[in-house]
Amino acid sequence: MRKVYNFSAGPGMLPEEVMVTAKEEMLDWHGTGSSIMELGHRGLDFATIIKETEADLRELMNIPRNYKVLFVTGGATAQFAMVPMNLMSDKKRADYVVTGVWGKKAMEEAMRFGDIEMAAQSAHRNHLLAAPLQEEWDLRDGIDYIHYVANETIDGLEFNFVPNITEVPLVCDMSSMILSRPVDVSKYGLIYAGAQKNMGQAGITVVIIRDDLIKTPVFLTPTLYQYQTHAVHHSLYNTPPTYSWYMLGLVLKWVKRHGGIPAFYEINKRKAKKLYDTIDASHGFYECRIHPSSRSLMNVIFGLPTDELDDLFVSEAAKQGLTNLKGHRAVGGIRASIYNAMPEAGVDALVKFMQEFAAKYAKG
Amino acid sequence: MRKVYNFSAGPGMLPEEVMVTAKEEMLDWHGTGSSIMELGHRGLDFATIIKETEADLRELMNIPRNYKVLFVTGGATAQFAMVPMNLMSDKKRADYVVTGVWGKKAMEEAMRFGDIEMAAQSAHRNHLLAAPLQEEWDLRDGIDYIHYVANETIDGLEFNFVPNITEVPLVCDMSSMILSRPVDVSKYGLIYAGAQKNMGQAGITVVIIRDDLIKTPVFLTPTLYQYQTHAVHHSLYNTPPTYSWYMLGLVLKWVKRHGGIPAFYEINKRKAKKLYDTIDASHGFYECRIHPSSRSLMNVIFGLPTDELDDLFVSEAAKQGLTNLKGHRAVGGIRASIYNAMPEAGVDALVKFMQEFAAKYAKG
Repeated sequence: MRKVYNFSAGPGMLPEEVMVTAKEEMLDWHGTGSSIMELGHRGLDFATIIKETEADLRELMNIPRNYKVLFVTGGATAQFAMVPMNLMSDKKRADYVVTGVWGKKAMEEAMRFGDIEMAAQSAHRNHLLAAPLQEEWDLRDGIDYIHYVANETIDGLEFNFVPNITEVPLVCDMSSMILSRPVDVSKYGLIYAGAQKNMGQAGITVVIIRDDLIKTPVFLTPTLYQYQTHAVHHSLYNTPPTYSWYMLGLVLKWVKRHGGIPAFYEINKRKAKKLYDTIDASHGFYECRIHPSSRSLMNVIFGLPTDELDDLFVSEAAKQGLTNLKGHRAVGGIRASIYNAMPEAGVDALVKFMQEFAAKYAKG
Repeated sequence: MRKVYNFSAGPGMLPEEVMVTAKEEMLDWHGTGSSIMELGHRGLDFATIIKETEADLRELMNIPRNYKVLFVTGGATAQFAMVPMNLMSDKKRADYVVTGVWGKKAMEEAMRFGDIEMAAQSAHRNHLLAAPLQEEWDLRDGIDYIHYVANETIDGLEFNFVPNITEVPLVCDMSSMILSRPVDVSKYGLIYAGAQKNMGQAGITVVIIRDDLIKTPVFLTPTLYQYQTHAVHHSLYNTPPTYSWYMLGLVLKWVKRHGGIPAFYEINKRKAKKLYDTIDASHGFYECRIHPSSRSLMNVIFGLPTDELDDLFVSEAAKQGLTNLKGHRAVGGIRASIYNAMPEAGVDALVKFMQEFAAKYAKG
């Protein structure tokens, strides 16, 4: 067992079992005498990775047959442009729901391509920030799609419901919560997720797209930015990031081995509850500004009474093997990212540290 | 030592020393208790990789100070679009020299964005295919840049000279020959190379661009497709492919340890000569259609008298641990890719196999 619990928001901690396998196979993948990263992407060896990765993801997420699964590069940031470039019709009109930094970034990139409005945003409820209820979404007529971010990694705010939108394609950035809880894929037109938070390492992005949304863009779009390129060529139009794909495959098999998404959802709820309960029981020493209805299961964000205590918390925790707890530079404070790969024992260790730290530094 | 010599064209063989280091550091990079792929791209740990990778590449290639080094995703195929999108002025005019499959692909993508002409192409000289001499390049007035591919991986054809173009920016795809021979970077406006052939694993692309060519595109260009985005944000606008970056860094240090580019150039010439000499001494059993002046040092391509013998050659070689010798589906035959990471002993083993195979199957 490794000695460190790494709470990095992404690239983030990967499952111990996956890392051990990756290490074992590094010099000789399945008797080939080569690492998988040294093998051609069109060879028979890599073909097994391609096939099994898609099959495993389809099984885990119960992806309907009329959806394509694409493996691309560029992370969610590339999707911020690919979504409008590919999904906009001549109308070039779409609405965005914004609950944090990433939703805003996605919207700003889309604004370069068309007529974009914000349909809803996070708002205060009992002085705490909450995701807008669906009845608060103000969608315009004639939009090409509606976009939202299921979990805001930096803000620690997550939707606790899947919107029920039937008129237009629902597009969702699931980068930081994919595989963490059950999701009804059929409610969506397009789902995308960078792998480096809850599915693997950086460099590969999964796109799940309903067949009928794959079409020739109305914009002058680079070949690699067209979903149809990747759909027609089965994500092999050019050399894909093979090792990132391999790691993604190992993580999916690990999720399957441990009970699939429902099993992780139960653990994730328990892990998050332990941290939020610790915060809530701290008499204000730890403060979380997110309304209980919208608290993220993946990124638990809280602050201490002063910036100095924030810093001391981060450095003292690191000494005990609880690393990378510093909040994002945009919001400060503490961020504990507890993706699927974070064992419950890691959360228990953090809870214990939080209690001891509060006992020592809270004014009594 | 591994038992296999892997002649894959890319993703290709990586240096034994590099793979051993990657394996050793997989579960604990430099005492962090985490793999480098589990650490944030903005943290102090990864910062050392960013800094050293650029410094090592600058030192190895003697990159002048007025050039930026960018690390991006999408491989050379993304560059096929990024080059015209970023380098074209309102004139939208550029010329391409085409000596193989990749040069043609680059030109076809550029044609979507502007007025493109082929300035020169490979031609027969003594019934063998050769790269066009520079005096044969027919450049138009008022072009924004001229593009060529230094080594055509599929065709086995390589330029043995650096063009001397002073009027317009010279743009070059060096994906399959970067670090294999000395190159005067100051002759170029822009150089790009996917890492997965001679610099590392798939997923990361190096762009070396002269400062004055970094400007706001005239096209509606996705944020990640703008060189200025990566220049301003030091290749950290979004999450980069961190592990590919790390592997690239290990390869660069390995090249430095073993004498730098001049040392590899000497070995590469010797390795290629051994194979071409074996072909030329086979009385036509092995045939190479590339003129001696343009024979690639990196991808040695040849054919046997029949397709059946090609296939038999590939399968018999694999039994002896000489793997992935099958030619690209576009041209058939045999392709021996002998990048920097291929030890001379691997080439010697292939020469021995070629001689034995010819002795057995050549009609006597």
